[in-house]
Amino acid sequence: MQSDIEICRTTPLQPIDDIAHQAGLQTNEFQSQGRYKAKVSLDALHRLKDRPTGKLVVVTAMTPTPLGEGKTVTTIGLAQGLAKINQSVFACIRQPSMGPIFGVKGGAAGGGYAQVAPMEELNLHLTGDIHAVTAAHNLAAAAIDARIYHEQRNGYADFTARTGLKALRIDPSHVTWKRVMDHNDRALRMITIGRNEDGKAVNGFEREDGFDISAASELMAILALSTDLNDLRQRIGRIVVAYDLDGQPITTEDLQVAGAMTVTMKDTIQPTLMQTLEGVPTLVHAGPFANIAHGNSSIIADNIATRLADFTVTEGGFGSDMGFEKACNIKAKAAHKHPDCAVIVATLRGIKANSGRYDLRPGQAIPDSLFAPDSAALTAGFANLQWHIDNVTQYGVPAVVAINRFPQDSEEELQQLMAMIKALPQGVEVAISEAFSRGGLGATQLAHCVMKQCEKTVQFTPLYQSEDSLDDKLHAVALKGYGAGSITYSEKATAQLKRFNELGYGHLSVCMAKTPLSITTNSAIKGAPSGFDVTIRELKLCSGAGFIYALCGSVMTMPGLPDKPAFMSLDIDEQGNIVGLS
Amino acid sequence: MQSDIEICRTTPLQPIDDIAHQAGLQTNEFQSQGRYKAKVSLDALHRLKDRPTGKLVVVTAMTPTPLGEGKTVTTIGLAQGLAKINQSVFACIRQPSMGPIFGVKGGAAGGGYAQVAPMEELNLHLTGDIHAVTAAHNLAAAAIDARIYHEQRNGYADFTARTGLKALRIDPSHVTWKRVMDHNDRALRMITIGRNEDGKAVNGFEREDGFDISAASELMAILALSTDLNDLRQRIGRIVVAYDLDGQPITTEDLQVAGAMTVTMKDTIQPTLMQTLEGVPTLVHAGPFANIAHGNSSIIADNIATRLADFTVTEGGFGSDMGFEKACNIKAKAAHKHPDCAVIVATLRGIKANSGRYDLRPGQAIPDSLFAPDSAALTAGFANLQWHIDNVTQYGVPAVVAINRFPQDSEEELQQLMAMIKALPQGVEVAISEAFSRGGLGATQLAHCVMKQCEKTVQFTPLYQSEDSLDDKLHAVALKGYGAGSITYSEKATAQLKRFNELGYGHLSVCMAKTPLSITTNSAIKGAPSGFDVTIRELKLCSGAGFIYALCGSVMTMPGLPDKPAFMSLDIDEQGNIVGLS
Repeated sequence: MQSDIEICRTTPLQPIDDIAHQAGLQTNEFQSQGRYKAKVSLDALHRLKDRPTGKLVVVTAMTPTPLGEGKTVTTIGLAQGLAKINQSVFACIRQPSMGPIFGVKGGAAGGGYAQVAPMEELNLHLTGDIHAVTAAHNLAAAAIDARIYHEQRNGYADFTARTGLKALRIDPSHVTWKRVMDHNDRALRMITIGRNEDGKAVNGFEREDGFDISAASELMAILALSTDLNDLRQRIGRIVVAYDLDGQPITTEDLQVAGAMTVTMKDTIQPTLMQTLEGVPTLVHAGPFANIAHGNSSIIADNIATRLADFTVTEGGFGSDMGFEKACNIKAKAAHKHPDCAVIVATLRGIKANSGRYDLRPGQAIPDSLFAPDSAALTAGFANLQWHIDNVTQYGVPAVVAINRFPQDSEEELQQLMAMIKALPQGVEVAISEAFSRGGLGATQLAHCVMKQCEKTVQFTPLYQSEDSLDDKLHAVALKGYGAGSITYSEKATAQLKRFNELGYGHLSVCMAKTPLSITTNSAIKGAPSGFDVTIRELKLCSGAGFIYALCGSVMTMPGLPDKPAFMSLDIDEQGNIVGLS
Repeated sequence: MQSDIEICRTTPLQPIDDIAHQAGLQTNEFQSQGRYKAKVSLDALHRLKDRPTGKLVVVTAMTPTPLGEGKTVTTIGLAQGLAKINQSVFACIRQPSMGPIFGVKGGAAGGGYAQVAPMEELNLHLTGDIHAVTAAHNLAAAAIDARIYHEQRNGYADFTARTGLKALRIDPSHVTWKRVMDHNDRALRMITIGRNEDGKAVNGFEREDGFDISAASELMAILALSTDLNDLRQRIGRIVVAYDLDGQPITTEDLQVAGAMTVTMKDTIQPTLMQTLEGVPTLVHAGPFANIAHGNSSIIADNIATRLADFTVTEGGFGSDMGFEKACNIKAKAAHKHPDCAVIVATLRGIKANSGRYDLRPGQAIPDSLFAPDSAALTAGFANLQWHIDNVTQYGVPAVVAINRFPQDSEEELQQLMAMIKALPQGVEVAISEAFSRGGLGATQLAHCVMKQCEKTVQFTPLYQSEDSLDDKLHAVALKGYGAGSITYSEKATAQLKRFNELGYGHLSVCMAKTPLSITTNSAIKGAPSGFDVTIRELKLCSGAGFIYALCGSVMTMPGLPDKPAFMSLDIDEQGNIVGLS
């Protein structure tokens, strides 16, 4: 089989104008960006707002190996499968981060014959949305440090006399807005900024700071959750970036930078239209990383797609404890639209990995032994898949298990797994997906299963309500959403919880950051444990996004590069074509 | 008069496809990016390579005030003026940096009726080239720190055993590749990265680092000086980012990151086609800041434009000691194409400011008193303009002085200045430009002067030859290019000069970084002094760009935000239009 980029390059694509028109967009509702990308104007949303909405299918997964179990392949494959059986369909995916592309995982455009194309444009820059989020985020950071510097240089009275502006008296030890970069850059996790030499204060005020990866920016969550440009502007203005010397919150509005941040992000509000290798219209919007971010594609993209097509297939990152939990408890609430069906991606290798009998490490290749038939490992690891089926079902959302087939998989084991799933009491549908090797034709059975489940009535049941306390919401996610037995708050988190309640933020949702490699907060624990403890070490107020962000266990919000990063194989050939991207 | 953004929004523009076709590009040679921007493929250059080249006009200036004297206005205005008198013409400008846009100066699209449009797209993101340069630059930085971390964690032998890669043994105290960001962010000038807590080395190896503004990245100079994608790839591979424990240079090729950096910058090689308010085709390419960077628009853009039009008007940043010097001594050499004419922009306020009788500070408004008639200040400051005329003339390039008229200027003083210039012995042409208030019609006289000077034979004389020693080249720029009497090297610079010679880099050009607000290295010294000393505090090897970068005086490569930054006035209105951008 050819490499992903070879398949993508040799598949003829349609001009994006044709894709847009076929999908039901009018000429004035999109602007093409080159031959195969277009920015979709929110005028389309305005025109379509009273149309009935189609079915929203969220693709999630069992607990994955560090390389992922093919959720994007299945998302694209299912959309292509639905098109093959003559359904009107859109795919909605998130823009890939350059961090994993240059780091471990490679591209995020799907793979094989289930890709969004051109894959190199999706994987690199796209239409610049992540760069714009990064720029807007770092503008606020520069504004904070400039304000501290200018207010402290000659004192507050002098600052006000010079500028006519009120002194904000920002507490330099209480700045909560870090900087961001769309790379895996371990060395920027904790830094000291504003360092000066020789007693000359020309580089600002020295303080501790750090960088997160751009997808973890509150601005990315705001982009995903906004319903229009005005909502984006209002949400940006609500962001709390620091506290003053009296402990009162300072917002971007106080810094008079919220307008400029919105201007910087103005074009990001428009989803980017692309196509799959089989011409299915695909909206790409907002960012990835459901472990350390909201990690679902945007409400705006869903709102456009569901009004133009009978089926919209989207994805929530990692396992159902991660992106799907946030799709149900954060996104569905903001969107007033719940998933109509969940697809749980499972693989033989993923199930066997969850037996705990294999030593898998991020940054290392998957051992070949994981593909060898191993009935005991399959039975032992099956508990994890079963857990995810239970988890999805508790939200009231009908589920389909998609077994993403790898070329090395044995037919016998696949049939064994099918039988185990069919024997479960929850009444889930199951299909083997061969979308990777066969495109849409390899996913028609899956498509039929999804259509069947979409006919069911959904009794959508999120884990908590707005009026629940923050503590109750965190417990709901940990206990009901993960199967934990308890939460332990650090001293810091305890104080933060108290303070956020005092400041009147008790009504917000909660967004958990934890490892995606376990349903617990410890990546080494596989399978389906229960009764474990969830340690919350720190909370962050994201009042623009509308949630309290909880850092669990030792999760990091800036990844690092492995010892032999994926970037080493990337290059251009003599014709200027990209080589080594997968 | 309306604001810049109002004029821009109310002027009807042509579809960019029409502009491209009228300019002589074929349909397969460009890809539109929305309605008013297009990326121009290097296929155009290939088709046109044997065509005769038109005249290249470089717009430079006298020593400017901190707000600039209207070089971009004059560049766009002159191009429009040439079009008004039926000449075929292109403008080539640099992509604006977001630093000054959010900081002090505002937008960089020209102004009034001499703008590149849509100005908000030019000023913000454009087609993402600066973001791609930033991303490629920071990828190399992350690669360096990841390599140091993984090699040091368990020792070199373990690293090689795990990865099969040779240990590079990078000296952490001798990493020369900093990080970059396209913002004015003072607090990032000097930072400590890789900080760890509790003795757990999870954030990398602690060392001193810093951020430059993206336009100062060696990659931006490489982009401006490359002739095609292959040249870009080769130049990127030659970049020295650090030294090993034996003092030997480490390149991006050693880190195996040069290919991925090129992939990241692949689309930047294509200039962006836009239009002026009067429909003159304009190529936007590479970055600004001729004070701390190369600061000229790209060779590729010039090569396309000069083969499609009889006149190409481009600009070199700041005064003729800055961008124009680099246009002649760095760019012309790499391009094998010298300027045919130089336009020196002067203003009454700029000349009076050079009298030294006014207290002008970066970040502060220009005092009204500077616009009041003041014959003595005009006479005193005239020496600076005369100096720039002499400076341009020594390169053998015929000059035209363009007096950029401000609405407050008195007619009497303008005529006095015209007479003073006409009385000079160098035989320069002079014209008043009213391009800001009248567009191309306000620059037809200037256009005629430029056409006249372009008929002259140029005896192009750069200040130094490749075979001169680095020390001689630095002296040539300081003594002949600035009028200095001497150079003082810091101890550090002395050692660096010796080392670069030992390493075989003596053939490179030199790129000076100094204040643009004086012909000396001290921004407070106005007018046209001579015999001063130029202090070189540090040298940087830019072997990809092909020059040694010399930091003079106290110049900084990361600007800071002022106490009342321009971003405070930026916002969107209820219709989603940008307000406050000028």
